Amino acid sequence: MKARVHVMLKNGVLDPQGAAVRRALGTLGFEGVEKVRQGKIIELDLADGTTEDTVKDMCEKLLANTVIESYSIELV
Amino acid sequence: MKARVHVMLKNGVLDPQGAAVRRALGTLGFEGVEKVRQGKIIELDLADGTTEDTVKDMCEKLLANTVIESYSIELV
Repeated sequence: MKARVHVMLKNGVLDPQGAAVRRALGTLGFEGVEKVRQGKIIELDLADGTTEDTVKDMCEKLLANTVIESYSIELV
Repeated sequence: MKARVHVMLKNGVLDPQGAAVRRALGTLGFEGVEKVRQGKIIELDLADGTTEDTVKDMCEKLLANTVIESYSIELV
């Protein structure tokens, strides 16, 4: 089975990477880019029967820094 | 308007970051983690009327390294 975890910075947390991408897009001549936020996608191939709680535990312990990041889990 | 770009390494391209996450999950006692692939999500707040072609152009020029990465665009 597959699980897909989306990890994004929480709103209000400064995103220097996103700001850098926004500046670079402007330099390349792209107009109208108001805001850029960058996060992670983690695709996990897991043994059948792995529960969403286990994936949640993986997020809490390793995949996301829950102080500044929020995550969502998608079982595929 | 919003666009969401998912950037992942192409199949067959070595993913050291994914391998490191997999090892770390094993060290934390999580069993049955067969494979881990890590990519990027880029959320763009764009001026209304920005076309998918423009977002595609952003991907080709900056957001993805098309030699080793593939991307998908979602207009939200």
